[in-house]
Amino acid sequence: MTDRLIGLFEQSDGKFLSGEQLSEELGVSRTAVWKQIERLRQQGYRFEAVSRKGYRLLSKPDRLDMSRLQLKLETERFGRYVKYYDQVESTQIVAARCVADGAEEGTLILTEEQTAGKGRMGRKWHSPVGKGIWMSLVLKPVWIPLLFTPQLTLLVAVALCRAIRGATGVEAGIKWPNDLLVGGKKVAGILLESSAEDERLQHVIAGVGISVNLQSDDFPPELWDTATSLAIEAGRQVDRIEVLSRFLLEWEQLYGLYRREGFAPIKLLWEALTVSLHRNIRCRTPQGEFEGFAEGIDEHGALQLRLADGTVKKLYSADISFG
Amino acid sequence: MTDRLIGLFEQSDGKFLSGEQLSEELGVSRTAVWKQIERLRQQGYRFEAVSRKGYRLLSKPDRLDMSRLQLKLETERFGRYVKYYDQVESTQIVAARCVADGAEEGTLILTEEQTAGKGRMGRKWHSPVGKGIWMSLVLKPVWIPLLFTPQLTLLVAVALCRAIRGATGVEAGIKWPNDLLVGGKKVAGILLESSAEDERLQHVIAGVGISVNLQSDDFPPELWDTATSLAIEAGRQVDRIEVLSRFLLEWEQLYGLYRREGFAPIKLLWEALTVSLHRNIRCRTPQGEFEGFAEGIDEHGALQLRLADGTVKKLYSADISFG
Repeated sequence: MTDRLIGLFEQSDGKFLSGEQLSEELGVSRTAVWKQIERLRQQGYRFEAVSRKGYRLLSKPDRLDMSRLQLKLETERFGRYVKYYDQVESTQIVAARCVADGAEEGTLILTEEQTAGKGRMGRKWHSPVGKGIWMSLVLKPVWIPLLFTPQLTLLVAVALCRAIRGATGVEAGIKWPNDLLVGGKKVAGILLESSAEDERLQHVIAGVGISVNLQSDDFPPELWDTATSLAIEAGRQVDRIEVLSRFLLEWEQLYGLYRREGFAPIKLLWEALTVSLHRNIRCRTPQGEFEGFAEGIDEHGALQLRLADGTVKKLYSADISFG
Repeated sequence: MTDRLIGLFEQSDGKFLSGEQLSEELGVSRTAVWKQIERLRQQGYRFEAVSRKGYRLLSKPDRLDMSRLQLKLETERFGRYVKYYDQVESTQIVAARCVADGAEEGTLILTEEQTAGKGRMGRKWHSPVGKGIWMSLVLKPVWIPLLFTPQLTLLVAVALCRAIRGATGVEAGIKWPNDLLVGGKKVAGILLESSAEDERLQHVIAGVGISVNLQSDDFPPELWDTATSLAIEAGRQVDRIEVLSRFLLEWEQLYGLYRREGFAPIKLLWEALTVSLHRNIRCRTPQGEFEGFAEGIDEHGALQLRLADGTVKKLYSADISFG
């Protein structure tokens, strides 16, 4: 019935179709029509409903076109093998299963929607259908000692920041350790899950969520003050494939640079793109709250915070806010 | 049939029983008897076979007595919940499954035999039945930043070294990063598999193999020059429960000390018990071979190697040998 309903709206060419009309054409009750339209709305179809006139199809969901992605991709390995889903619980969970089954470095898990997207510290990541880039990439950086793993988070943030700026012109900045902000609001997040054998990394599953085409009403009210999207900031619909393919290219290139040259060039780029340094910040950590001046990051990716008493505290993990 | 066969040997009180006698008593062929005896040998029973006289039971396999372990244990959490097996592929694999099912910190996986015990870098760990302590302990040190994970390996080595010395008098020493040696030969090994979310550890599965009561002929020939056991070094059978319960107590106490005081006291203990420092060593690493003078370990557990040109190289992972 869904396909026939969509067909009717497509043939109607933007005109209103009444519930009665639809129920007759499809041979089902008006309640059944209404339920079906609600379901399509959840899948990203947008309808206008006007009493006595009925429903009008405004737009169909944007779907990621996998063959277009492969045509646009300029990478060697990143994203060359893609597992693409309409809906998953979390791409991190799917990726972990792929790794257990022997997935190679660069394997990309991509979905239109996550029902339980993972954020940091057990938080949820809001991932509505068709509006974002909800993805996980499999890395096998067995050449990185375990203790340098946080450097990888910074590397991914640099790649993503450059891709967003390049693809949309939106001036995103990096908030330590792993968010991207525009005008103080979060537009993307990064979550690395890593596993190691002694001091050697085995694999890293890099989860990235980018709020691309969400409008204000796509966010739950509690996020209105703190979240935004590329479309809101750019003032136009953004091509997800363009952002994704640029991101994978930037990422692969920086990953190669990091392998050859170490963290030094990544650190320079990160410092150039961050909004977290050289200002007063407040840090919530498992050990308590600290306020101070963010002086820099060290070679391990730890934030160096100068406290009021002049001492410098190294933070490995925190939620920061700007004072 | 197995139980009846063992019963006959137990009743014979150390006397020889001929194959003919056994086959009559059990009502099976002499080949079946012979096969059964071979199977028992694999399970750790030792027989003397003399032609025309038959078989004599020399010793039954030593089995870990779980109720005795609980009586001897002085820990609060470590080893208070035990999963005990006759045979597993690897206790690390079993422990990973337990963690996925929500196992708590201190959960102990213990087996009489591993068919594919895991060593470092994909190597196998020789784990014959009834002769060793083949175990994995579940830790959830979510309070340790990821980059301090190598400190945990050093902590486990200190606990194990102290337990061995205390329980057996054997003067074991720690070889960086995670072996225990006696007279230059390996007597135990440690393998930590950790998983993290960003810079925060989620759980660590600490695998430990201790060669307790292996005799020379229990080792494959290729290990004769490099491996030994506590029994060989002590010149007597060693009580596995005694070693295990001491180890868990030392470990839990050091883990508490580490949580309260940080790495400094662990580092002092490690330096007192190691055989790897203040001598010339050769290091094989993924980046190549290095020779130099082992000056110390740093706060992250990295080995500081002074090279011939006077520079100091930090090693995070290596196979070392003594020059």
